[in-house]
Amino acid sequence: MSQYPAVEQTEMHPLRWGDPARAGALPEATRGLVEFAFGELSERAVVVDAPLPPCGLPAAALAELRARVGAEHVLLDDAVRRLRTRGKSTPDLLRARAGDLTDAPDAVVRPGSHDDVEAVLAWAVAHHVAVVPFGGGTSVTGGLVARREGFAGVVCLDLVRLKRLLAVDPVSMTATLEPGLRGPEAEALLAEHGLTIGHFPQSFQHATLGGFAATRSSGQSSAGYGRFDALVVGLRLATPRGEWRLGVAPATAAGPDLRQLVLGSEGTLGVITELTVRVRRLPAEKVYEGWHWPSFDAGADAVRTLVQGGLAPTVLRLSDENETAINLARPDAIGADEDAAAPAGGCLMINGYEGTDEAVAAQRERVTAALTALGGTPLGTGPGEAWAHGRFDAPYLRDSLLDVGVLVETMETATFWSNRDAVYAGVRTALAESLGDGALVLCHISHVYETGCSLYFTVATRAAADPLPQWLAAKAAVGDALVAAGATITHHHAVGTDHKPWLGAEVGALGTSVLRAVKADLDPTGILNPGVLIP
Amino acid sequence: MSQYPAVEQTEMHPLRWGDPARAGALPEATRGLVEFAFGELSERAVVVDAPLPPCGLPAAALAELRARVGAEHVLLDDAVRRLRTRGKSTPDLLRARAGDLTDAPDAVVRPGSHDDVEAVLAWAVAHHVAVVPFGGGTSVTGGLVARREGFAGVVCLDLVRLKRLLAVDPVSMTATLEPGLRGPEAEALLAEHGLTIGHFPQSFQHATLGGFAATRSSGQSSAGYGRFDALVVGLRLATPRGEWRLGVAPATAAGPDLRQLVLGSEGTLGVITELTVRVRRLPAEKVYEGWHWPSFDAGADAVRTLVQGGLAPTVLRLSDENETAINLARPDAIGADEDAAAPAGGCLMINGYEGTDEAVAAQRERVTAALTALGGTPLGTGPGEAWAHGRFDAPYLRDSLLDVGVLVETMETATFWSNRDAVYAGVRTALAESLGDGALVLCHISHVYETGCSLYFTVATRAAADPLPQWLAAKAAVGDALVAAGATITHHHAVGTDHKPWLGAEVGALGTSVLRAVKADLDPTGILNPGVLIP
Repeated sequence: MSQYPAVEQTEMHPLRWGDPARAGALPEATRGLVEFAFGELSERAVVVDAPLPPCGLPAAALAELRARVGAEHVLLDDAVRRLRTRGKSTPDLLRARAGDLTDAPDAVVRPGSHDDVEAVLAWAVAHHVAVVPFGGGTSVTGGLVARREGFAGVVCLDLVRLKRLLAVDPVSMTATLEPGLRGPEAEALLAEHGLTIGHFPQSFQHATLGGFAATRSSGQSSAGYGRFDALVVGLRLATPRGEWRLGVAPATAAGPDLRQLVLGSEGTLGVITELTVRVRRLPAEKVYEGWHWPSFDAGADAVRTLVQGGLAPTVLRLSDENETAINLARPDAIGADEDAAAPAGGCLMINGYEGTDEAVAAQRERVTAALTALGGTPLGTGPGEAWAHGRFDAPYLRDSLLDVGVLVETMETATFWSNRDAVYAGVRTALAESLGDGALVLCHISHVYETGCSLYFTVATRAAADPLPQWLAAKAAVGDALVAAGATITHHHAVGTDHKPWLGAEVGALGTSVLRAVKADLDPTGILNPGVLIP
Repeated sequence: MSQYPAVEQTEMHPLRWGDPARAGALPEATRGLVEFAFGELSERAVVVDAPLPPCGLPAAALAELRARVGAEHVLLDDAVRRLRTRGKSTPDLLRARAGDLTDAPDAVVRPGSHDDVEAVLAWAVAHHVAVVPFGGGTSVTGGLVARREGFAGVVCLDLVRLKRLLAVDPVSMTATLEPGLRGPEAEALLAEHGLTIGHFPQSFQHATLGGFAATRSSGQSSAGYGRFDALVVGLRLATPRGEWRLGVAPATAAGPDLRQLVLGSEGTLGVITELTVRVRRLPAEKVYEGWHWPSFDAGADAVRTLVQGGLAPTVLRLSDENETAINLARPDAIGADEDAAAPAGGCLMINGYEGTDEAVAAQRERVTAALTALGGTPLGTGPGEAWAHGRFDAPYLRDSLLDVGVLVETMETATFWSNRDAVYAGVRTALAESLGDGALVLCHISHVYETGCSLYFTVATRAAADPLPQWLAAKAAVGDALVAAGATITHHHAVGTDHKPWLGAEVGALGTSVLRAVKADLDPTGILNPGVLIP
C-alpha cells in the first residue's frame, strides 16, 4: 500500500491553494510574527461566487463535441468552470479574489482515452477553439491562462479520467501511466508493486503526472531520484496532426532527443496521453535530519562539496539565515520557538536519506563524516522530521496571509555555483528596490547539481490596496535581475504567461523562432494553449 | 600533464581508420584464427591515389570566400580534399578503396573563429553551396556524405583551427572549449588544471568535441562520467541566421531543453563553435579488472543489478560467449591463448573504477561483494588492464581484415532490459540470414542505464567479390530487425546517411516533420549537411 494516501477531494478551492477543508486562518504564532514584521493586520475582502461569463460556444459546436466524447463528459456548469479558471499563481488568485473570472473556459471536456483527446483536438481545429490541457490546476506561472482573442472560444481539456497504470516493467524498472494521475494516486498504484517514482514537488498532493512532464517539474527528492524530465523515458502525445510516440530506448544517438522538446512544452505542442517513467523500489528506510552551518556561504560550500563528491543524499536543502530564523521549514511552527537547543543564527540544512537499511546507513555515515569535516553541526532527526511533516503545506500560508493583507510569494531560479552569490544578491536587491525595505526575503537552495543549484526565494510584504500591480512590478524586477545575472528565469515552475517576457533573453531570438516553428508544424492553427510559453 | 598524450598527426589515413603509421597487417595469431574461421585469405586490391574531381566552384565565389576567411584558409589541394572525402563507415571505406572519390568536397575551408564560421555560412547561403562541418572525420554512419544535387558545390568546413580552452570554472566544475579539439588535445589542456571530461569513445584519439556533441556520442566510461549529451551544459552555434547561445543554468523549466535539439543534430542545424561541459577531477586511481560469468544472461543480470542498485563502476562492459571466446577485448591478442588460468567458456566482464584512492577502494569493495553474491568469479586486474591498453585499437582491425578479404563491421543499439534478449536474438538472426551461417557475430553490453543497456555487435564474414552490396544488405537487415524489436537504430554512432531510412520508424512521421521544420527555420536554404540525418 502507498505511504502517500490519496487525497480524497478531486477539486482544489477555487480561490485558494489546495484542499478547501484545510484552508484557514493563520496559526496564532505565525500571526504574531507577521504583525511584528508588518504591523497590525486587517482582513481583506474576497469576492465569493462571482458570476462567470456564459458559455459562448455555438450550440452546434457543442452538440458535435458531445457526440465525439459523450454528452456527460462536456460540462458547462458554473461550479466546474469556476474551478478551472486559471491556476494558482498570485496574479491568478488576486484576480479571482477580486471577482474577475473573465478567463473562465466556455466548457470543460473530459476525454476518456487517447482517441478521445485526438477527437477533441480535431473538433477544436474544425471550430477554431482554443484548448487548455488541465491536470491538477496547480500552475503558479499563469500556464492555464490561454489567449482568447482570435478564437471561437476556450475549452478546458480536463484529463481527470485518464488515471490508469497501464504497464509495469519490473525488469527495466519502468512504468507506463496516464497523465491525469495526481501524485498520490500514481504513488498508490505503484506502491502495490513495491515501486515509487520518487517525484515529490510541493504541488505533489494535487498536481498530475502530465503536468509534471509538461512543466519539467523538479521534486524535493530530486538529488536522489532526479528531475522529472530525467525520469521520463517515453511519451505518447495527441496532437492536431495525430499521434506521436517517442522513447524506444533508455538513450539514443538517433538525432536530437525529441522527448526533451515535449518535456516543458506546457501543452502548446500536444497533449501527453501516456508517460513511461523510471521507477525505483519503495525505500524501506527514510531518515531526514538537520545540520547547522554558521552561514549560508559555509552551508552552500558544504552542499556543493557533497554533490561534486558524489555524496548527495536523496533530499538536500539549505535555508539562508533569514529563512532559518523564521523557521520556514516548518510552516506549522513559524514564529514558534520550540528548539531552544539549536544554535542561534546560522543556517539550517535538511538531509534526507532513502533506500535500503544498509544503503541509508552507509550513505549517512559517509555524508556525516564529510559534513563534520567541513564544520557542520548535526542537529539530529528532529528538524528533518519536522520538515518532512510540513513539506507540502507552505502554499496554504500564501492564502492565509493574503486574507490579512500580507502579500507572500515564491520565486525560483537556478545558476552555476560560481554565480550563486551574484544571483542571490541580485534578486534580493531587486525585491528590496521594488517592494521597499520592509519586504522580508527568505531563500533556500532546493535542488542541487554538480555544476550548480536552484535558489528558491520567498518574499513577504504588506499588501498595497491593490496588490496586483505591486506584485507584477516585483515579479518584473526579479525577471530582469535574473536575466542580468545570467540565471534561468525558472528552475521548476515553467514559463506559462508570467515568465514569457523573459524567455527570449534566455533561449535567444533563434530559440523562440525554433519554438514557433515546431508549434506551427504540430499545431498549424495554433489551438493548443495559445499565448502560453511561446513568445 | 595529460595521461592521454596528444596524437601527433592531425590527419587520418585516407583509406583506413586512424594513424597511418599504425595501419598494418594482421597479427599472426589473429590471421590464424581468421583463416580457421573463413578459410584461406587473399589480398584485396586497393586503388591508391585515385583522382579527385576538380573543384567546381566558380572563381568569383572562391575569391569571395578567400576574402572572408583569408586565402591561406581555403584549400583546394587534392591531398587535403582526399582526406575529407566522406568518413570512416564501411561503405565510405569500400568506396574509397575502389577509387570512388566522387563525394570529395570542392574546397576545404578552415575558419579561425565563430565569426569566421558565420561568414562562411553567409557566403554559402549567397552562393548556395552545401557545407559539411568536419571535426575528426571519424563518422561511421555516412555523416560526412552530403547531398550534392541542387547545390553549386560542397565545401568541407574544417574546424581544425578552433582548438582553444576558453574558460575553466573550477567552482562550478565546467570548462568552455572550442569544437575542433580532439579528445587527447582537450584532455591535455584540462589536465593542466587537474581536470578531465571523462569522455573516451573508441574514436577518442581522433574525434573532436564538436563531433561528440553533434552526434550524441557515448564513451567507454559512460557509466561513471555520463554520455556526452549529459556532459554538455552550454552551447554556442553559428547558423545561417546568426549566433545562438544556449545553457544559462545546470537545469531549467524554461520551456523545452533546446540544447537537446542541437545535440545530435549532426551539423544540419548549425555549427557548434563553443561548448561548455562538465569536468571532473583527474582520477588519482584507476583500476580495471575482469570478472567471469557462466553465461551472457547471468552476466547481464549482474550488470543490471549493479546499475539498478546504484553500484555501477566507471567502466562496465560484458562480452557474450562468442566475443569472450575470441578475446575481442584485446585486439592485440585475438586468437592468442595467453590466459589459460581463466575459466573456459562463459563471459568476460570488465569493471573499471576511477576516482580518489578511497573512493575507488570503497566502491570496489561494494561491487566485489555484490558480484560475488551474484555468482561471479573475479579474474583480477589482468583482463582489465589488457582491455584498457587496447581500448582504442579495434577499428584498425577492420582495415587489416578488409585487406585480406574479410568484411568486419560493428553495429550498436540500445534497448530496455526486458527487451535485451529479443534484440540480441533479432540482430543475430538478421545477420545470419543476410550473410549466411558462416558469419561470426560477437556482442557486448557497452553502456548501461538503470532502465536498459546498449548492445554492441561485431560481425565478420568472408567478403564477396564486391563487398559493398553485401554489407548494405546486412546493414538493412539489422536496421529492420532493430525497428521490429523496438530498439533504437543507434545508441552512439548517430544517424548520418546510413541510418536515415529507419529514423522515421523511431521518431515517427511527426518527429521527422518537426526536424524538417526546425531545419527550415534555422537553415532556410538547406545548406547545412544536406541529406544527412533528416529524412
